Amino acid sequence: MAPDRDVTELEIPPLDAGAREGARRRWSTLTKPEGSLGRLEELAERLAAMRGEARPRFRRKTIAVFVADHGVARQGVSAYPSSVTAAMLDNFLAGGSAINTLARVVGAETVFVDVGVDAEPRSESERFWVRRVARGTRDFSSESAMTRAEARRAVAVGAEVARATIDAGTDLLATGDMGIGNTAAASAILASLTGRPAAEVVGPGTGLDARGVARKAAVIDAALRARGLDASDPWSVLAGVGGFEIAAMAGAALAAAQRRVPVVIDGFIATVAALWAAAVQPRLVEYLVASHRSAEPGHRLALERLGLEPYLDLGLRLGEGTGAALQLVLCEAATRLLDEMATFEEAQVARRIRTS
Amino acid sequence: MAPDRDVTELEIPPLDAGAREGARRRWSTLTKPEGSLGRLEELAERLAAMRGEARPRFRRKTIAVFVADHGVARQGVSAYPSSVTAAMLDNFLAGGSAINTLARVVGAETVFVDVGVDAEPRSESERFWVRRVARGTRDFSSESAMTRAEARRAVAVGAEVARATIDAGTDLLATGDMGIGNTAAASAILASLTGRPAAEVVGPGTGLDARGVARKAAVIDAALRARGLDASDPWSVLAGVGGFEIAAMAGAALAAAQRRVPVVIDGFIATVAALWAAAVQPRLVEYLVASHRSAEPGHRLALERLGLEPYLDLGLRLGEGTGAALQLVLCEAATRLLDEMATFEEAQVARRIRTS
Repeated sequence: MAPDRDVTELEIPPLDAGAREGARRRWSTLTKPEGSLGRLEELAERLAAMRGEARPRFRRKTIAVFVADHGVARQGVSAYPSSVTAAMLDNFLAGGSAINTLARVVGAETVFVDVGVDAEPRSESERFWVRRVARGTRDFSSESAMTRAEARRAVAVGAEVARATIDAGTDLLATGDMGIGNTAAASAILASLTGRPAAEVVGPGTGLDARGVARKAAVIDAALRARGLDASDPWSVLAGVGGFEIAAMAGAALAAAQRRVPVVIDGFIATVAALWAAAVQPRLVEYLVASHRSAEPGHRLALERLGLEPYLDLGLRLGEGTGAALQLVLCEAATRLLDEMATFEEAQVARRIRTS
Repeated sequence: MAPDRDVTELEIPPLDAGAREGARRRWSTLTKPEGSLGRLEELAERLAAMRGEARPRFRRKTIAVFVADHGVARQGVSAYPSSVTAAMLDNFLAGGSAINTLARVVGAETVFVDVGVDAEPRSESERFWVRRVARGTRDFSSESAMTRAEARRAVAVGAEVARATIDAGTDLLATGDMGIGNTAAASAILASLTGRPAAEVVGPGTGLDARGVARKAAVIDAALRARGLDASDPWSVLAGVGGFEIAAMAGAALAAAQRRVPVVIDGFIATVAALWAAAVQPRLVEYLVASHRSAEPGHRLALERLGLEPYLDLGLRLGEGTGAALQLVLCEAATRLLDEMATFEEAQVARRIRTS
């Protein structure tokens, strides 16, 4: 169910400079030394600019996790078999995964989306959508991962999910992913968009050893040559070596930004999805909040290209939106500090003195 | 009301190696790639060893904030006047400060303790204790900040508060501080315990400019010479240049560790308090959880001496326990992931394959 107009063509509104300035001014009135909340202050100001309110509050935080399989997994580019994707989807739906736990810890909703798992479909529910483009992508080591039409459908799935979630009250969105083989797809997209050799962006993913990493790089380099991708045509890159869940995360981020909903991006895969989406709609970057620095080496490059600095550095490399879930707490902390703290006037606290 | 035996003399139990091993083994059975939760895994293992349970759960998290004034503030070592200490205490009690907000965000209780504010005492309540040693310390630039007996009383106050809080169900304790002038006291303790010149450990605190920082360092160096402190006698250091809230934080940490309750330390002041306490009872270190790396330069040295690596690096320099409050979420996330996630067996997820 693609919308009439493609999500990648809809305009993203500019940030609200007045709201940002209002937030900045309010910080200077609150009962704390100037600047003493460090990066939380700048975070709240950015969130204010995105929401168009000087004192934004988040009422509903949602983590959208997109799940799909990858034909390239047949090339031994993952430490786990493809069957794990469907098994982990069952685990998500049963509430047993890391992201289920973290959503409970941080008070966020979850929505899981099957964008193309290679298994019998599971029954839908309010928090589980089946929107399959196909049963996994094709193996990009021998053919294009998807057609351009499939890429557009996968992006539209993400947009559809984001819009429905926002219509239901979500005002802060985190994106996450699950899909055996998807660090290979993300590495291929990143190498293609940045012109770097695969060896520079490839890492162990869920746990490849050095030989496995080298094979993954070789598979990607060969595919980039064979598929004839053009970095100036992002759709050729996404269709050639992408993944359905990566495309959907990109669509979700674009749709959220169009509605002024901040997008908290997780680790390597989600960041590459955002990088792709920003190649299509550069203003998206203004609505992105980086969460953590993943152990996956390509993550650093993707963040640099987006000009984003993560807030957490915990050596996570799990995906599912786990780093983004933790970042939701920092977003809530930053905005609630800005909104709830007393001013110097209200608390009758003396302001700083000149001591030298 | 000091206990019969000094908290600094009571033994801290060794970590439970069996519980730690149980936690480590459980991580390897959970539905995620080995090691993919990064530092959260090691954090949960440490917390398991402290609690003596392979799957610890925290039922009640408390942030204890100790408040006191400093005679040395008269020497222009702070950007704010001493009157701000009492005003901020009122702000804490009215719920308008940063730590009040963060406690609400992370679902923690708070307890505020007046260990020696230089103002008319405020009325006590369940979450506000008045346990004044004196109305502020004496100015350590001209005399000893406190007597040894006062130092022992302030340490005992912290222990009393920690024990009462633990008796009421607290199983995870964070310590924080408020006291105009207390970065000067903490810097003096740190310089004394480490033998470093004040210039190496002193920073802007709540916002001194370069001239103010230089004056603060000169005041401290002169005091360290004049007071004749002996690093091998930690009580001489605490009495000579310390603060009541610093002593109380040290006592609280020791009492908590004696009861196997992990202690989450905040920024520079709380870390120096812990460093002092570890000089008295070295095993305390095993029960400490660092939270964030403060912008105050001496914090790095204090953490290094304790052998602790913080989890957050957000440029905070507010005190009050604000960084520790955020760290409570990571402690809860780590232990709930360990406890709540499904195992590979439960979720019927295939384990990793050998791919090379």
